[in-house]
Amino acid sequence: MRPGTRLKSLPQRAELLHLSQRVQTLVGDRLSQMEKLIAEYLRSPYTPVAEMGAYLAASRGKRIRPTVLLLVSKMLGYEGEKDIAFGAIFEFIHTATLIHDDIVDQALLRRGQPSLASRWGPELAVLMGDRVFIMAMDLAVQEGWSPILPLLSKTTLRLIEGELIQSHRKWDLTLRREDNLEIIKNKTAHLFAACAQTPAHLTGSPEPVRQALEDFGVNMGIAFQLVDDCLDFVSDEATLGKPAGNDLKEGKVTLPVLLLLEQGTPEDRAFVEAVVASRRFDPQTLREMADRVVDSGMLHEAEEVAAEYARKAKEALGIFSDGPVRDLLALLPDYILRRRF
Amino acid sequence: MRPGTRLKSLPQRAELLHLSQRVQTLVGDRLSQMEKLIAEYLRSPYTPVAEMGAYLAASRGKRIRPTVLLLVSKMLGYEGEKDIAFGAIFEFIHTATLIHDDIVDQALLRRGQPSLASRWGPELAVLMGDRVFIMAMDLAVQEGWSPILPLLSKTTLRLIEGELIQSHRKWDLTLRREDNLEIIKNKTAHLFAACAQTPAHLTGSPEPVRQALEDFGVNMGIAFQLVDDCLDFVSDEATLGKPAGNDLKEGKVTLPVLLLLEQGTPEDRAFVEAVVASRRFDPQTLREMADRVVDSGMLHEAEEVAAEYARKAKEALGIFSDGPVRDLLALLPDYILRRRF
Repeated sequence: MRPGTRLKSLPQRAELLHLSQRVQTLVGDRLSQMEKLIAEYLRSPYTPVAEMGAYLAASRGKRIRPTVLLLVSKMLGYEGEKDIAFGAIFEFIHTATLIHDDIVDQALLRRGQPSLASRWGPELAVLMGDRVFIMAMDLAVQEGWSPILPLLSKTTLRLIEGELIQSHRKWDLTLRREDNLEIIKNKTAHLFAACAQTPAHLTGSPEPVRQALEDFGVNMGIAFQLVDDCLDFVSDEATLGKPAGNDLKEGKVTLPVLLLLEQGTPEDRAFVEAVVASRRFDPQTLREMADRVVDSGMLHEAEEVAAEYARKAKEALGIFSDGPVRDLLALLPDYILRRRF
Repeated sequence: MRPGTRLKSLPQRAELLHLSQRVQTLVGDRLSQMEKLIAEYLRSPYTPVAEMGAYLAASRGKRIRPTVLLLVSKMLGYEGEKDIAFGAIFEFIHTATLIHDDIVDQALLRRGQPSLASRWGPELAVLMGDRVFIMAMDLAVQEGWSPILPLLSKTTLRLIEGELIQSHRKWDLTLRREDNLEIIKNKTAHLFAACAQTPAHLTGSPEPVRQALEDFGVNMGIAFQLVDDCLDFVSDEATLGKPAGNDLKEGKVTLPVLLLLEQGTPEDRAFVEAVVASRRFDPQTLREMADRVVDSGMLHEAEEVAAEYARKAKEALGIFSDGPVRDLLALLPDYILRRRF
């Protein structure tokens, strides 16, 4: 990360370092139970379904979505086991979209390892993604009827539509900021919101509680995606698990680029247009793109936008009384702003 | 179709010719309502989602699965509207698998027209298939809780597993007949069974009724797939909408080939092994394969196997009293045996 681009007035680094430890203390047991469930459901009597399943279970991500779900569940005092199942279910939806995204983006790497599509070929990856999607739906159905079922199906549908619109508007420099926000909400933020509000359904909490949790999730999800889009310009393959400048190469026109087109110099604009028109995404070009985004202050501005959504996320937690879980949840948006990978 | 390979003791052709007319008389209105629903749900504010949706709605198939569902529904005297919705839902599941199959098989044609994958590219086709899958699940969830929900999710999961096993065992000549039957059940027959038994759930029919309809559907589905596998050797691009001998080219080792390996001459066996080992699937080779399958009598034997399942399907209808709908349903397995496309 280049100096001078990070935000001020964030919690101390030390406080954030302890975050994962505090998550472990509060919901570590339940996260472990969920991992067992995930591994179990990815088993199969059929090779290579079993092989792909084991690969997915091993190359786990940050599990941030189920962590949010389980923390909120604890905050609301839920005492059943369904939150663990839904943690796995929402993580499966996320996993399935990543499998298919890597086909769509022809991405070789995912979390620093070969993507399923590059290791087993796009054909098997299409089917394995389908299996994980439908397995998630099937697991949810097994939990019986609740408002979580339509929430899950609608959220997944929006997620896929977000991907479709993004894919349709590849390298489209006429994309407006509101279009970008719409894509981000669909492909990322609504899944965070679904995870955050699921415990409200499980506990039959009143509507204002559900609404507050949805607001928390949506805003945190937007912040999460915006940070992701910023990191793409300043991180490298070693820390992010994918090459820097990768988004534009894949056709994703993200907020820093939109801001540069809007507020940069005529030279900046001409540069972006030339790169996209020629589809030349060699390392040197991508480095110059990153330099322009940073030097113009647009990366910083995009980070400020992310910080604003993080602030809104924390604000939404205002209706809950203080306590160890609520305080930890309130730190998550800051953690998201600070993350490097 | 070559002469001498068809089965005897089937209903007269004239009787079958009137079949589609009789279907129209009995459930034509409901099929039209379903078509409207399908077109409506494939609409979207986003191009190219809307374009792909319109293309799918226009290039409709035989609609045999929803036809079964609506006929059974009429036979059981169901008076609601949910059968129309579930007809669309199961057809969407079928459609979604076709979209993804054509990516897996790299098929250029579907029903004589460019496949979605070849027209819009595999990337958009992956996402559009996802959308249709999840839209089907979402529509089912909108219908509220019933045993049809787990039936739908389990059936879809088996369908995808059938495709996965088939893809994994591409050109695998060690495939046994029972493996082939397992693949056929998963990828085709259980969806027919789900369609046939859905009206039993809608009407709250007693278990023996549901079981009989499941048996009817499974056996008819197996017959349907076996006939499909036979037609692949004797039909041509003009009538089937895909090139003859296409299955083996795509790696699918079907019953006629398994029978040839089992019961053909040593020369037949050596020929099949050489073709698969060399992956040479030029038109002349595929024609020789078809000749061997027909001349050895193995195509005929595979058709006899299909006829046996068709017989079992009709037998399962024995518990229902005679009537115009039941009689028409009993003709469907024969229609399936006679079909040329």
